[in-house]
Amino acid sequence: MSKIGGSFVHLDGDVTTPLGFRAAAATCGLKASGAPDIALVVSDVEASAAGVFTQNAFAAAPVRLDRATLLASGGRARAVIANSGNANAVTGPAGDAAAAAMQRAAASALACPPEHVLVLSTGVIGVPLDVARVERGIALAGDALTNDAQSGHARSGEGGSAAARAIMTTDTRPKTAARRVRLSGGDVLVGGMAKGAGMIHPDMATMLAVLTTDLDRAPADLAADLAAAVNVSFNRISIDGDTSTNDSVILLANGASGVVVAEADTEAGEDADAAIDVVTAADVVTWRAALVDLCQDLARQIVRDGEGVRKLAVIVVTGAADDDGARRVANAIATSPLVKTAFAGGDPNWGRIVAAAGRAGVAVDPARVSLSFAPGERDVEAAPGRVSILANGLPTAFDDAAAAAILSGDAFRVVLELGIGDGTATVWTGDLTEEYVRINADYRT
Amino acid sequence: MSKIGGSFVHLDGDVTTPLGFRAAAATCGLKASGAPDIALVVSDVEASAAGVFTQNAFAAAPVRLDRATLLASGGRARAVIANSGNANAVTGPAGDAAAAAMQRAAASALACPPEHVLVLSTGVIGVPLDVARVERGIALAGDALTNDAQSGHARSGEGGSAAARAIMTTDTRPKTAARRVRLSGGDVLVGGMAKGAGMIHPDMATMLAVLTTDLDRAPADLAADLAAAVNVSFNRISIDGDTSTNDSVILLANGASGVVVAEADTEAGEDADAAIDVVTAADVVTWRAALVDLCQDLARQIVRDGEGVRKLAVIVVTGAADDDGARRVANAIATSPLVKTAFAGGDPNWGRIVAAAGRAGVAVDPARVSLSFAPGERDVEAAPGRVSILANGLPTAFDDAAAAAILSGDAFRVVLELGIGDGTATVWTGDLTEEYVRINADYRT
Repeated sequence: MSKIGGSFVHLDGDVTTPLGFRAAAATCGLKASGAPDIALVVSDVEASAAGVFTQNAFAAAPVRLDRATLLASGGRARAVIANSGNANAVTGPAGDAAAAAMQRAAASALACPPEHVLVLSTGVIGVPLDVARVERGIALAGDALTNDAQSGHARSGEGGSAAARAIMTTDTRPKTAARRVRLSGGDVLVGGMAKGAGMIHPDMATMLAVLTTDLDRAPADLAADLAAAVNVSFNRISIDGDTSTNDSVILLANGASGVVVAEADTEAGEDADAAIDVVTAADVVTWRAALVDLCQDLARQIVRDGEGVRKLAVIVVTGAADDDGARRVANAIATSPLVKTAFAGGDPNWGRIVAAAGRAGVAVDPARVSLSFAPGERDVEAAPGRVSILANGLPTAFDDAAAAAILSGDAFRVVLELGIGDGTATVWTGDLTEEYVRINADYRT
Repeated sequence: MSKIGGSFVHLDGDVTTPLGFRAAAATCGLKASGAPDIALVVSDVEASAAGVFTQNAFAAAPVRLDRATLLASGGRARAVIANSGNANAVTGPAGDAAAAAMQRAAASALACPPEHVLVLSTGVIGVPLDVARVERGIALAGDALTNDAQSGHARSGEGGSAAARAIMTTDTRPKTAARRVRLSGGDVLVGGMAKGAGMIHPDMATMLAVLTTDLDRAPADLAADLAAAVNVSFNRISIDGDTSTNDSVILLANGASGVVVAEADTEAGEDADAAIDVVTAADVVTWRAALVDLCQDLARQIVRDGEGVRKLAVIVVTGAADDDGARRVANAIATSPLVKTAFAGGDPNWGRIVAAAGRAGVAVDPARVSLSFAPGERDVEAAPGRVSILANGLPTAFDDAAAAAILSGDAFRVVLELGIGDGTATVWTGDLTEEYVRINADYRT
C-alpha cells in the first residue's frame, strides 16, 4: 500500500522507520507456543511521550504504572517494554510490583531512569506474571538491541518487525504502518505497530499500539495529538467505554528529524527562541492528519485480523444532530450481533440495521432516514455500484442480488443518513462468524 | 412446574386461564411455512388495559397505534389482535393504515369499538403487510372464537395454547405461564403468553407478551403494576434501551373474579363506595409479586428458547452503589460476546467477566470485588457446590474442573459482589453458540 494523502505518503515500515529508534524482540517462555513474547522499542535519545489508556475499572498494573510514570517524567521517555502471553491484570499488589520490576529491568538494560520506561502487557487475565522469566527476556532483548547498535545499524527494520510479532496474542499476523510527512521544515517519519485480537472491539486484555516519530514536538502537544487521533481510529473499532483491562496506545517523538511542530498559538517569544523551522498552523494540520491516517490504518488492520472476521464493514452515519449522536448510532449498528451475523451471511437484512440504529438512544426521524450499501472501504459517495436500500424512511425496490453481492465482498460501506443535522461518524467492524464462536468457546481449555 | 410463591401458586395455563377470557388462532398465509399467524385474545367484558412498548426510534405502526388507542380509551380494551410473519415496521403511512385495518377488522368481528382493540405484529421488517390476507385471518379467528363460545366453553385452554403458537416466529416452542393468587378477597388468576426469538436480548421485531387477569383493577394502577413488573423481567433480558421496533407487553384485567385490588392510598371515599373486598396494602404487594413472578417466568422461557441457546446464565450483581449501577454491570456481562462464548464452551474464563464488568461505566473498587459461580438458576446463596473464583479482588485457588462443571450445566448463576453499596440486579442471558451464528447468517436467504 503506497498511497499519497494530503501531504503524506504511505510507506512500508514500522516503529523503527523514524530516525533514531531501534527495537528488538526476545522469547522468555510466557506463551505455551514458545513464540516471542518480549518487545522493546527504544529511542536513542530522550523523547516526548504520550499515552492513551483503557477506561476499564480493572485497569491492569502496567496501565496504572504508565499513568504515574508519564506524570512523574513530565511526558518524557526513552523506551517501551512490552510482554505478551500475560496481561498482568487483576493480579493485585504483586502485579504492581511485577510491572515495576519490568520497568526497572528495561531501564537497567538501557542505562536510563525507570521513569523513562513505559510498560505494556497483553494476554491472559488474573495469572501472576513470572517476573524472573520476564527479566531474563528483557535482558535478552536489551542485548539484541546493543548488538544491533554496535553493528552500526542506526535503524533496524528487522527489530521493528520482530517487535511487532512479539506483541501478538491471538493475532494471526503482525500489524505495522508508516508514513512520510511533508512539513514546511522538512520531512518527518512516523511509524507504528499494533496488536488486536478479541473480536472487533477490544474486549480482552487486548489492544496495544506503539507509535514513534522523529518529529520534535512538546509533550503537551503530543498528548493532544494522540488523544485526537485515537478518538477517530482505535476508539472507533470499539463501543463506547468498551475497553479491556490493558488497552494502551503510546506515542514517542524524539525530534531526530530536526523538524519542529509547535502549536501556532503558543507564545511568540518562545517560538522565536526555540524553533528550527517556521511554525505554521498548516503543519499542525498536516501532521495530525498523517497521525490519524496511520492510526486508522492500524485500527483497520486490527479489525481485519479480528477473530473469525472475514470482511471489513465500514459503518458511516451522517446527518445526526451532532457527531456524538452519529457515533452512538454507528456503534449500535457495529456491535449488533444480528447485524454482524447478517454481514457474515452476505444478507442485505437492512431491518436489523435500522432496528439497531433505532435503539441507540439518539433522536431520529424515521421519515428522513436513508440507507445505502456500497462496495469497498472508501469514497462511498462517488462509488459506482452503490445501492440505495431505504429512502426517506421507505424501502426502495432495490436489487436484492446486487445488495447481497456488496455484502459478500471483502470490504463494504453501510451508509445511514439521518437527515437531521451535520453530525457524522465512521466506525469499522467485521462480520460475526461461526469461527469466532469456535475460537472463543475454547480459548482457555 | 408447580411451585408455591409467597401467596401464589404456579399453574399450567395461559391467557385463557383467568375467568372470562377466550382466545383463538388462524392461518392467513403470512409465513412461508404455512404455520398459524393470527392470534386473538378476547375478554368477555370490557377490561382495564395497560401496555409497555419499545423505546426504539423506529417503533412499528402497531406500537404507535396502541399508544394512541390506550390514550383514547382511557386504558380500557376488549381484545388483542396479533399477527406473526410480518412486523409492519418501517412501512411508512401504508403501515399505519394496515395496523388500523387490523384493529377495525377485529372490532368488527367482536362488535366492539376499534379503540377497544390493541394490535401486535412481529416478523420481518420493511415488507408491506398484506391487509386483505390479514383481514381474512382475523375473520377466521373471530369465527373460531364464536363457535367456541356457542359450544359452551366459557374458558378455552385450547384457544390459549393455539394463540401462543400463532405468535411464534423463530421460537421453537410456545411460551405460556399462569398463577393463582390468594388475596384477602379471594383468589384471582393471571396468565400469559410470550414470544421471543433473536438471541437473548430482543433485537429483531421480536418480543411480544399478552397477559390476562380476572382481577378488578383500575387502569392507572394496572399501568403502574405492569411497568414495575416489566422492569425486572422482560427488561432484564435486554441491554438498556435495546428494544426492537415491535417489542410490546399488554395486560388486560377484566374483573371477572369479583376481587378488587385498589391502591391502599387512594381516596377513602371512592374505595368505600366501590370495593367489593377489603383493600389492603398487603394485597397490592402479593398481586405485584405474582405478576413479577409470571413475567420473569415468561422472560426466562424466552431466554431458554433464544436462537442457539443451550443454557441459562443468571447474572447476579450485588453491592453496587445503587440498583441502576448493578443493572448496568450485569448488562455489560450479559451482553459480552466473549463472556457468552466462554459460557458456550463451559469455560470458567472469569477474566472476561471482570473485564466486561469493568467497562460498564460504573464506579468499582477492584480490591473489593468478589466473584463466584453456582449451579442452578435460583437460591445461589445457599446453593451447595458454589465455587468462589475471586475474593476481594484476587483470584482464589479454585478448582478449575468444578467451575467448568457448573458452567457446563443447564443453568447456572454468576454472582459478582462489588462490596460498595446495596444496589442489586439480576439479568438472564444465554450462551453464544455456533448455532446462533448459523441461524442468523442466513435468516432471509
